[in-house]
Amino acid sequence: MSKYNAPLTDMRFVMFDLLKAEAQYARLPGGETATRDVLDAVFDEAAKFAEQVLAPLNAVGDEEGCHFDKTTGTVTTPAGFKQAYAQYISGGWGGLTAPEKYGGQHLPESIGAPLKEMLDSANLAWGMYPLLSHGASEALKQHGEEWQREVFLKPIVEGRWTGTMCLTESHCGSDLGLLKTRAEPAAEGNGADGTYAVTGTKIFISAGEHDFTENIVHLVLARLPDAPAGTKGISLFIVPKFKTGKDGKMRERNAATCGAIEHKMGIKGSATCVMNFDAAEGWLIGPPNRGLMAMFTMMNTARLAVGLQGLALIERAYQNSLVYARERLQMRSLSGAKFPDKPADPLIVHPDIRRMLFTQKAFAEGGRALGYYAATLVDLVERSPDADERKRADELLSFIIPIVKGLLTEVAIECTYAAVQIFGGHGYIHETGIEQFARDARITTIYEGTTQIQALDLLGRKIMQTQGVGLKHFLEEISAFCHANAQNAALAEFVAPLAIAAKDWADLTQAIGKRALANPEEVGVAAVDYLFYSGYVALAYFWARSVAAADASAQSGDFKQAKRSTARFYFARILPRTLTHAATLRASAESLMAMPDAQFG
Amino acid sequence: MSKYNAPLTDMRFVMFDLLKAEAQYARLPGGETATRDVLDAVFDEAAKFAEQVLAPLNAVGDEEGCHFDKTTGTVTTPAGFKQAYAQYISGGWGGLTAPEKYGGQHLPESIGAPLKEMLDSANLAWGMYPLLSHGASEALKQHGEEWQREVFLKPIVEGRWTGTMCLTESHCGSDLGLLKTRAEPAAEGNGADGTYAVTGTKIFISAGEHDFTENIVHLVLARLPDAPAGTKGISLFIVPKFKTGKDGKMRERNAATCGAIEHKMGIKGSATCVMNFDAAEGWLIGPPNRGLMAMFTMMNTARLAVGLQGLALIERAYQNSLVYARERLQMRSLSGAKFPDKPADPLIVHPDIRRMLFTQKAFAEGGRALGYYAATLVDLVERSPDADERKRADELLSFIIPIVKGLLTEVAIECTYAAVQIFGGHGYIHETGIEQFARDARITTIYEGTTQIQALDLLGRKIMQTQGVGLKHFLEEISAFCHANAQNAALAEFVAPLAIAAKDWADLTQAIGKRALANPEEVGVAAVDYLFYSGYVALAYFWARSVAAADASAQSGDFKQAKRSTARFYFARILPRTLTHAATLRASAESLMAMPDAQFG
Repeated sequence: MSKYNAPLTDMRFVMFDLLKAEAQYARLPGGETATRDVLDAVFDEAAKFAEQVLAPLNAVGDEEGCHFDKTTGTVTTPAGFKQAYAQYISGGWGGLTAPEKYGGQHLPESIGAPLKEMLDSANLAWGMYPLLSHGASEALKQHGEEWQREVFLKPIVEGRWTGTMCLTESHCGSDLGLLKTRAEPAAEGNGADGTYAVTGTKIFISAGEHDFTENIVHLVLARLPDAPAGTKGISLFIVPKFKTGKDGKMRERNAATCGAIEHKMGIKGSATCVMNFDAAEGWLIGPPNRGLMAMFTMMNTARLAVGLQGLALIERAYQNSLVYARERLQMRSLSGAKFPDKPADPLIVHPDIRRMLFTQKAFAEGGRALGYYAATLVDLVERSPDADERKRADELLSFIIPIVKGLLTEVAIECTYAAVQIFGGHGYIHETGIEQFARDARITTIYEGTTQIQALDLLGRKIMQTQGVGLKHFLEEISAFCHANAQNAALAEFVAPLAIAAKDWADLTQAIGKRALANPEEVGVAAVDYLFYSGYVALAYFWARSVAAADASAQSGDFKQAKRSTARFYFARILPRTLTHAATLRASAESLMAMPDAQFG
Repeated sequence: MSKYNAPLTDMRFVMFDLLKAEAQYARLPGGETATRDVLDAVFDEAAKFAEQVLAPLNAVGDEEGCHFDKTTGTVTTPAGFKQAYAQYISGGWGGLTAPEKYGGQHLPESIGAPLKEMLDSANLAWGMYPLLSHGASEALKQHGEEWQREVFLKPIVEGRWTGTMCLTESHCGSDLGLLKTRAEPAAEGNGADGTYAVTGTKIFISAGEHDFTENIVHLVLARLPDAPAGTKGISLFIVPKFKTGKDGKMRERNAATCGAIEHKMGIKGSATCVMNFDAAEGWLIGPPNRGLMAMFTMMNTARLAVGLQGLALIERAYQNSLVYARERLQMRSLSGAKFPDKPADPLIVHPDIRRMLFTQKAFAEGGRALGYYAATLVDLVERSPDADERKRADELLSFIIPIVKGLLTEVAIECTYAAVQIFGGHGYIHETGIEQFARDARITTIYEGTTQIQALDLLGRKIMQTQGVGLKHFLEEISAFCHANAQNAALAEFVAPLAIAAKDWADLTQAIGKRALANPEEVGVAAVDYLFYSGYVALAYFWARSVAAADASAQSGDFKQAKRSTARFYFARILPRTLTHAATLRASAESLMAMPDAQFG
């Protein structure tokens, strides 16, 4: 059975030594209480909960899955899930970063990053329930009227209710402009009571129905009568499972029911529901026809969260791979027996096993730096008293989010693949728990926008539509880092290639931009390669910074040496992936676009 | 539900236009009857069986899995599997390439390649049963005494019995030198009756127990008393499920029983058994202590077969991806609506969807050329009357097998991943049948030697230990092709980069060889990158040849243009992967090997 130990040392290194989060918290509203000793205690407690409560339920959830009762429309979660949720709520985890006014502790958002990583490493499927609540909270916080926050946000923060995001319909996923669910002002008083009748079917609704809480708050995208076609005619509605009015009183069951749950490749403990809305009572949230905008604000944090899911699975895969690579004896080292007293050497002596372990380690620790970095930008966007700082952080965050989501989920596929490979045949059977990571990971490159969507978001919106303002900020950071360390001999081996990679990145972006002006298809042709290219260079930056931060820290000698060795591995054996992406980015669009569709076969 | 249509046009193109198999058959013993019209009929019939009988059982097998009855030790295969096997046998498919003397039709081995591809595309799990019989047949054919062939080979060829290969034990997979199963001359007459008592436990035994046939012939690796330690003390034994003597009469149940079946990530319709041998009656096959050699001869064909499994899954993934990419409407082309009359454009207009489809197509068709090429070498090794030709073919085959197995299974992971990605959320649920391909594919890079083992076989044995004789033959072929087409303007765009790639391949091999002489670890450090590098260049050769063969063929204009477009895609957007592998191959071993194991964490 696979284990999990929260990597607290590295988490703290990233938060405090690398990102200097403590100093940032000290100057942000709500961050005053986030002192180092408080955070240490929070992390310790979260680790205990993840390791002792959630991790043992991971295989259970996969084996048992969720149960759907067709006659009652109810969903029963796997054994232990409901109790774990109760513990989570009673521990106060649900409201950690929510406003005090609605029952939260108002800690900075980025404190949620290591917590989220721990929950997801321990049990990705279970982690979906609080994740969706968090998304719904964000929407309510940012777009709800005051009474909506009182009535719907508060019980979510308190954990008494949970939330969902109801976007997808069977004929539209990436392309929400096609959605058909409609909302009509309720007949009584022609909508004068403010309610709407929401009708339609949504699919792939995570946590759409479950047994954790007494009520569920669905946030549903739908069209008002006479709304414009496409994405400009979509509004957002609050549709509670049990009708709830402005007085906050739960009334009778709403016509928002679960019609089925999906049987999936992984995250089987997460209930993925078909939701039927049959003139269900709902409330408009935010302005009419601006629902997609509201959803987009939620999406930023949701995409960051899915990037952290990727990180979480990489870490879990790495831990288990490492234990096995040390225990499993198989063949001798090519340079002679390393453990002559044993019948064979452990796997870890073999170079390609080391390559896979190093790859996992480099993406886990580098990905942690990248992911938490993005989370600290969220703090600045939300809480910085300085408008310029808020603006810059927002531009940087918007730019970095598709990289975090796209890269960390794609390399999670690679790293969970590697775990199965290291375990060999034993990795392919349920018993060891390893193949579950690969199945669970597989959804992360799809939901909250596929890798393709992330790539188009990065290159099409975040680069082309803003003249690359976020990239400019990021390159300035890299440049400042390189400049500050120009005389640091101990860092020269990283700073020099990083400076070159950053320059190439800028040049390549320019070149693509020029071609895209001539032919809009070029953006789509280049997008995915550009996403990977950007991700690998971004991680090179964080690896160089990690070595610098480790050297300057009070961490152990082994810790510092391991950071340096892993950075060397990264620069020598991962960063060269940019060569292929750069070559492909220089290839003509013709090679992809010229063949008539019919000739595919 | 996913469909399958045998790609007969491309299969025939590869066999007859590209590889000129008909001409080769005409001059080989047993090949005289393999005329084009006979083969056309054989392929048509095989396609019908695969499409109509096996393909519909694919999802059934995955959903239902195999059933194990603990009290009786029996395994029941999924509904329909047994009947399909009966049809397969009554259709004469089991003995197609086996010697006539033992009930086969003695057709050249390579005719089995497209058949195997069809069976595996249709139903990989079901295909495991005949595959294991084929492996056991090979061992009996090549290493069995005459009576052993009469008694054990004949019923397998006739399909009345099946075979297994019992290698792995719980503590040893890649490292068979560690195996503990023992065989002692039977007490009666001190082994004078020729039987042995085989005792031990084998795991991961495909088709170890099932309900297809009345008897199962296990080929079991075990140690004789006082056998040398390690791989030089392993012998091979025939252990039938029901004791069978030299008279061929099945007697009572042997103590070779199934103790459990594994619950796996995929190929759930294939029974993967724990086999307990408890002083089971067995017969030595081949010389004592040379069992691993005997297994290696089987392994060559088994590894080719697993390479073809990879190909089969790529083809199936591609077909389904293509259908969906044409049907599913989502968003508009970046260069303006392509189907303005529809609510959105089909996925296939989007560049990155095209990239994934092209990748699948390039690996399916290029992989088919590579895989079938290897199969035609098997014909020459087994049947050529010319000793020099046999020797050269054997050297080429030994060299190419780890590339076929390693590359085609690894890219099968990529291509089944792409299928899920193209289907989006719909690919992640069981209902569409797409995620099954990814789960089924996941075993192919593990069994019959992991990718790491293939890579070490390629670089360590096939290059280093033979001074690269197989590579030399292959590079000569490429050189001859480039030379023959030097004046062909229509091929220049492929011939020029191919010639460069071939030269780089030779140079890189030399450089690695030199480093490996100084440090044996270098082989392990370089192996996997070298395998991929070699595979991508090999496919470039087959893509260039495919364009040439298509141009010279009577195929349709669309067919020829599609080959050319796909080759362009391959050279522009897949072959550049060699840049990263080459850079990594040039990196110091230090970056991988220097860090002490303890610092991994």
